[in-house]
Amino acid sequence: MFAEYGRGGGAASDAPPFQVGLLGHGTVGGAFAELLAERAEEIERFNGRRPVICGVLTRTRGDFEQILADSDLLVEVIGGIEPAREYQLRALRAGKHVVSANKQLLSRHGEELFECAREHDVRLRFEAAVAGAVPVVRVLEESLSATPIERIHGIVNGTTNFILSEMTAGSSYAEALAEAQRVGYAEADPSDDVSGRDAAAKMAILARLAFGSPVHLDDVRYEGIEHLQGEDLEYARELGLGLKLVGTAERRDGGLSVHVHPTFLYSGHPLASIAGPFNAVTVESDTITEITLSGPGAGGRQTASAVLGDVVSVMTGGARPPAPPLQLRLITDVESAFYLHLDVADEPGVLASVTRVLGEHSVSIKSVVQRGMGEHARLVMVTHPVLESRLRAAIAEVDAFGFIRSPTRAIRVIEEEFV
Amino acid sequence: MFAEYGRGGGAASDAPPFQVGLLGHGTVGGAFAELLAERAEEIERFNGRRPVICGVLTRTRGDFEQILADSDLLVEVIGGIEPAREYQLRALRAGKHVVSANKQLLSRHGEELFECAREHDVRLRFEAAVAGAVPVVRVLEESLSATPIERIHGIVNGTTNFILSEMTAGSSYAEALAEAQRVGYAEADPSDDVSGRDAAAKMAILARLAFGSPVHLDDVRYEGIEHLQGEDLEYARELGLGLKLVGTAERRDGGLSVHVHPTFLYSGHPLASIAGPFNAVTVESDTITEITLSGPGAGGRQTASAVLGDVVSVMTGGARPPAPPLQLRLITDVESAFYLHLDVADEPGVLASVTRVLGEHSVSIKSVVQRGMGEHARLVMVTHPVLESRLRAAIAEVDAFGFIRSPTRAIRVIEEEFV
Repeated sequence: MFAEYGRGGGAASDAPPFQVGLLGHGTVGGAFAELLAERAEEIERFNGRRPVICGVLTRTRGDFEQILADSDLLVEVIGGIEPAREYQLRALRAGKHVVSANKQLLSRHGEELFECAREHDVRLRFEAAVAGAVPVVRVLEESLSATPIERIHGIVNGTTNFILSEMTAGSSYAEALAEAQRVGYAEADPSDDVSGRDAAAKMAILARLAFGSPVHLDDVRYEGIEHLQGEDLEYARELGLGLKLVGTAERRDGGLSVHVHPTFLYSGHPLASIAGPFNAVTVESDTITEITLSGPGAGGRQTASAVLGDVVSVMTGGARPPAPPLQLRLITDVESAFYLHLDVADEPGVLASVTRVLGEHSVSIKSVVQRGMGEHARLVMVTHPVLESRLRAAIAEVDAFGFIRSPTRAIRVIEEEFV
Repeated sequence: MFAEYGRGGGAASDAPPFQVGLLGHGTVGGAFAELLAERAEEIERFNGRRPVICGVLTRTRGDFEQILADSDLLVEVIGGIEPAREYQLRALRAGKHVVSANKQLLSRHGEELFECAREHDVRLRFEAAVAGAVPVVRVLEESLSATPIERIHGIVNGTTNFILSEMTAGSSYAEALAEAQRVGYAEADPSDDVSGRDAAAKMAILARLAFGSPVHLDDVRYEGIEHLQGEDLEYARELGLGLKLVGTAERRDGGLSVHVHPTFLYSGHPLASIAGPFNAVTVESDTITEITLSGPGAGGRQTASAVLGDVVSVMTGGARPPAPPLQLRLITDVESAFYLHLDVADEPGVLASVTRVLGEHSVSIKSVVQRGMGEHARLVMVTHPVLESRLRAAIAEVDAFGFIRSPTRAIRVIEEEFV
């Protein structure tokens, strides 16, 4: 079954083939093997060496020791922590390059792997771990390596972006999730996606690249989309806002803040138009203003294409491991504008009481919509930027009023800053 | 004035500084020198060598021979053909790397320079020549080097995109151009931008990278925005279309087509939301579906940032010259959907006559809007894709009718294909 991938290896050139060991042969691994066979000749034409697959390890076949001995480079697309971590470390220590799509592993054990790659002067590449075929890893590592980055905003989970697009079009959360599962964008157990945890792992990896400071998945605050209400999207639309699950990594007061939250965007924001299962990342810097990269966030062929791009960059000799880490302080209480949704009894003085409490906590209101619903009413507000701790304290006090009928909901808002 | 740029060179490390000779000290050159000084320490931290400027050549000062002798790498930001071409060739032959922002030179003499770089095994990098800080050159050269690209669409001229954004908001062409000149997005003589020639040079460079086949500026058909009418934008809006100056490079029937035209986009197209002086490039491939990169297309700091990114990539050792060229046949007559604007006398049988002639030339109509204007009327149509030669023949025949009051206008339309 696998022998065909080596077909023609080394035929057209005097240089020996570049031996690739493949760990994992699921959706991405299988697509990678196909793509490599299709593109080997073209890669040889511009690199002088033909990449060939020298061995494949699956749950039921293949011998890791033999593959390790035969390879110039190992592609790890098994996923999960063990044995992927052990295989990668073994390969790096043996002087073999590694290309991985494993975001779980990198967001938990990245520093150990980077340090091992530096120590043995081999390459560890992982474009496919974040945003599929969208080359955000390489752009951060290389194109922007000379640029002092201020902030990254990313839509890095296609499943939740698809669900939110469906909800924006009128579906409930449950309907949108069911549709995502039906078309194959969400798994039977969607919790890693909808909880924001998958996006948090990717933001940890991007933050490490952008800011040079180690960020573990456990350092990333995240919040999912499971508790969003369709009416939040409706009110927000009236305010000119759209809802995305946005990961943010940014310099704040000499430290670093990394978090993932459902977030409202004004229509002019570069991420506002990203619909369906797509991913996009916006990088902001005084030097470059902002650049945005977008494209499909997943899919076997797309992810395999990113893996193959990494293999080629190792063959070309350019990829280097991330520099030894800086240590930036992690900051969790950051300023943001917020959308607030208050469910109140429709009686005199409610707005005055709410705004007085908000004012006492230095929460300043930018816009407000009040709508009567019979005996109760909705107050929907957007605040100016405020420390989250202050906002939470204000909400706690507001929610103690007798006229508040259900807990107040708060959702972050990113205001349009450019164009 | 220039001595400060070398400040601290080689201080923190045992490795000798990386010597950069700077040819040109205008907006980009000056910004580059500043940025290098700001970032030298950080670059040394992850590369082990500190980049320093060892000499600057301007019209009135500096000695090219001395700078050449002292440099590891030359940055050429003079622009124009000569002496930039001669300087680059001299540097490459002397075994020095070159980083250039010179789109004119690369779109006319690219193959000569690439060949020279390959022959002397040195690097020639040119990220800043296309789309400023948006890393489209590197993404095509490296991330997508293993991906068979089908098509590129690019908004690669910020001046014209700004003007079209203003026209969409209601300005006339003359008003929009004057505003672009007032805010510094257009030069006193805007002809290189508004004629489409600047975009054509950039598309020649991108096409070479994406398809591996030499494309000279003279091979690129281009058409500017000078003759666009405000009413075209108004009618198009009714059809759900927005107008951009779009460069296209695509495989067609085993050959290659590269052209720049004012083009209508449906609102779902990734380029449709690119407003103001921004640039964006969409790369399409069966493997990756599509990815889009966007950001500021110009500006001294932004362009300098791209130049510095190239310098760092040469220091890192990864950049390689483009492979020797393939030779793809250049195709000029390609299929496209078109918007047609007909100015007709308001009399019976006009629509029947027009549609009969279009049908005889196999031009199929997708949508039509007819509007009376007193004694005359407007017919605005969008066709299904048709060979341009067929469309032009049909228009010639239509325009011979007595009821046609002014020459029919045809503008390309890119239909939404994704999401």
